[in-house]
Amino acid sequence: MVEELTSAGGRVHALSVDARRENEVQELCERVEREVGPIEVCLFNAGSNVKKSLHETSDKLFFKAWELACFAGFLVGREATRHMLKRGRGTMLFTGATASVRGSSGFAAFSAAKFGLRAVAQAMARELGPQNIHVAHLVIDSGVDTAWVRERIKEREGAEAVANLAPDRLMRPEAVAEAYWALYSQPRDAWSSEMEIRPFGEKW
Amino acid sequence: MVEELTSAGGRVHALSVDARRENEVQELCERVEREVGPIEVCLFNAGSNVKKSLHETSDKLFFKAWELACFAGFLVGREATRHMLKRGRGTMLFTGATASVRGSSGFAAFSAAKFGLRAVAQAMARELGPQNIHVAHLVIDSGVDTAWVRERIKEREGAEAVANLAPDRLMRPEAVAEAYWALYSQPRDAWSSEMEIRPFGEKW
Amino acid sequence: MVEELTSAGGRVHALSVDARRENEVQELCERVEREVGPIEVCLFNAGSNVKKSLHETSDKLFFKAWELACFAGFLVGREATRHMLKRGRGTMLFTGATASVRGSSGFAAFSAAKFGLRAVAQAMARELGPQNIHVAHLVIDSGVDTAWVRERIKEREGAEAVANLAPDRLMRPEAVAEAYWALYSQPRDAWSSEMEIRPFGEKW
Amino acid sequence: MVEELTSAGGRVHALSVDARRENEVQELCERVEREVGPIEVCLFNAGSNVKKSLHETSDKLFFKAWELACFAGFLVGREATRHMLKRGRGTMLFTGATASVRGSSGFAAFSAAKFGLRAVAQAMARELGPQNIHVAHLVIDSGVDTAWVRERIKEREGAEAVANLAPDRLMRPEAVAEAYWALYSQPRDAWSSEMEIRPFGEKW
Repeated sequence: MVEELTSAGGRVHALSVDARRENEVQELCERVEREVGPIEVCLFNAGSNVKKSLHETSDKLFFKAWELACFAGFLVGREATRHMLKRGRGTMLFTGATASVRGSSGFAAFSAAKFGLRAVAQAMARELGPQNIHVAHLVIDSGVDTAWVRERIKEREGAEAVANLAPDRLMRPEAVAEAYWALYSQPRDAWSSEMEIRPFGEKW
Repeated sequence: MVEELTSAGGRVHALSVDARRENEVQELCERVEREVGPIEVCLFNAGSNVKKSLHETSDKLFFKAWELACFAGFLVGREATRHMLKRGRGTMLFTGATASVRGSSGFAAFSAAKFGLRAVAQAMARELGPQNIHVAHLVIDSGVDTAWVRERIKEREGAEAVANLAPDRLMRPEAVAEAYWALYSQPRDAWSSEMEIRPFGEKW
Repeated sequence: MVEELTSAGGRVHALSVDARRENEVQELCERVEREVGPIEVCLFNAGSNVKKSLHETSDKLFFKAWELACFAGFLVGREATRHMLKRGRGTMLFTGATASVRGSSGFAAFSAAKFGLRAVAQAMARELGPQNIHVAHLVIDSGVDTAWVRERIKEREGAEAVANLAPDRLMRPEAVAEAYWALYSQPRDAWSSEMEIRPFGEKW
Repeated sequence: MVEELTSAGGRVHALSVDARRENEVQELCERVEREVGPIEVCLFNAGSNVKKSLHETSDKLFFKAWELACFAGFLVGREATRHMLKRGRGTMLFTGATASVRGSSGFAAFSAAKFGLRAVAQAMARELGPQNIHVAHLVIDSGVDTAWVRERIKEREGAEAVANLAPDRLMRPEAVAEAYWALYSQPRDAWSSEMEIRPFGEKW
């Protein structure tokens, strides 16, 4: 992706981090501020969807789901906004899912993590909004059109199901990006703290 | 406003209608289709905020609040989308308020109307979305910065309160327009059915 | 029903009213206060579920749905609590449905009415609660086990579907009554303003 | 409390457990089943309200809040219902708070934990309901009238504030118990999955 973006004329830095480790997150933020530029906008996107019946959900699985989707989000949100606050401006974005607002059967672990992340986003939005930091949470109520999602549909419903997918039934990554861009572009007298998007044909 | 927009190079038609009358709404929509062009987007914005204690709320007031904010919205939404459906495309937008999602003390009449309008928007979004009509409801959780709102603040809190209004504490009409534009511009694989906006310093 | 309850030892008065007429509702409340006793608890239950596509929903249907489920609820709530306020005590209950909290496709008219009634209940609860009037809204997310509902299942799914209904899949009227009784019985330091009930096997 | 209840004629067993440890929770449930009787109803109530600004919230605090209010709830819910499922009956109750449904400023850690617990309760309710296990979450939107809460009011507002507390402004523990009893007593054709209670004079 770095190559693709660079050859299209973009300037991209790809850095990796274990977002569950406080010191790694702190070091990453400091390095970005030092080597790349002020953190104008930060998007926290990590999380691993997992479905298990309650009695097959181990304590380890429950912890891991939370550590990645919720705890890491807290760390990243806290550390990125620490730098933003010094400048009195910035945008902090979080990715949510249907599981952020609904605890469905089989999703105790994933939903607990995503509900928790939504709470973090709300508390941050209320505390940091008046300090000119825009915090928003995007609920993506859809599969996103990636190779990985198409593979899963194929496994569940067969190759024909993938081939016959009606247009715009999955959400393109570009459309997700547009939604984040719209949130980032909002003037501060009209900020959304949460937005929900889904494809036009999705049941809800 | 027509003059202002026209002299800025815009092309504007201002037509008036009693949106609570089925035949007037039908005729307006037909006239627009005939004389102006296809209804690509329609925004229903009517409604009259009113606060009265329950036992001072007359049946007439309750009816009037509903007729303007809810019934008219149903009529306009139904008639505008009738034309959109023929072309298989269009955007129908509704204006909501805090009273759309919370029945506060003193707001039985206004909230009943605004809750009702939100129900209309949801039912339309679910029915018409799969037919490529984008229906969305914008919750404006703020005073909007108009002469009328400033006058009310003056009445309640004095002239100094208005003079000392911190920047961006009210929402500019332009910022509301941007929010509608963002909804209108969404690609159909990432539609929002509801969006909530408020100024950065607003308590919520 | 009067006979059934009387022969079981109850004391029952059945009075009829057009709940959409202010003067009839006022007269009924006054008559009850005069002839029966102080209105300790009042339950508003009217409403007529109707499903129509948006473009088959006439303005008359939209009005009728609202007049019965929302406007009448406002009138009854206002008039019953007028008497309760004189004594500084009482309970006002409203019946809601899934359509009170979700505007589904085909339910623009019914949902607009039920959303509106919920707004009335919320505004009344917030205004009258501190005056010792308990206002609560019960969301019944289920079919209720009446002859009429069984007849509709028969029409839609056949006689066998009714005969094979698993136990407790519909909600018995007695169970609804128990829920209202639970709300009525709450001590005033622990009032619910809304409660949602559904059968154990219901999807939600 | 054991003495108080025993001398009033009750039969009480008080056992302690670290609810954050899987093996301790499993052993407790097994011991109760063996020595006391079948677990007919289980109430998970742990959680520690804490308010800290975002940038004073350490990763340790965030983890501890989650471990106690959310992770332990998952463990207790999973282990108690394991025994209930063998008998095909039982009731699992969780205690929520305002922070379960709203992420307020200063409550990133506590809200993330309580939102997460609510997700656990919802997922359990949807999975186990059809298996005749009633799972419900009680949102207590109030201070509870305990010595500890009165002490905190005294610290914040002075001794007079405590002395002058209007009747029923705090919620008595008995009133909370009644709410749990009401949930436990619901027939299975009319189960609530969530109930919210507050004192009559509370703002909301």
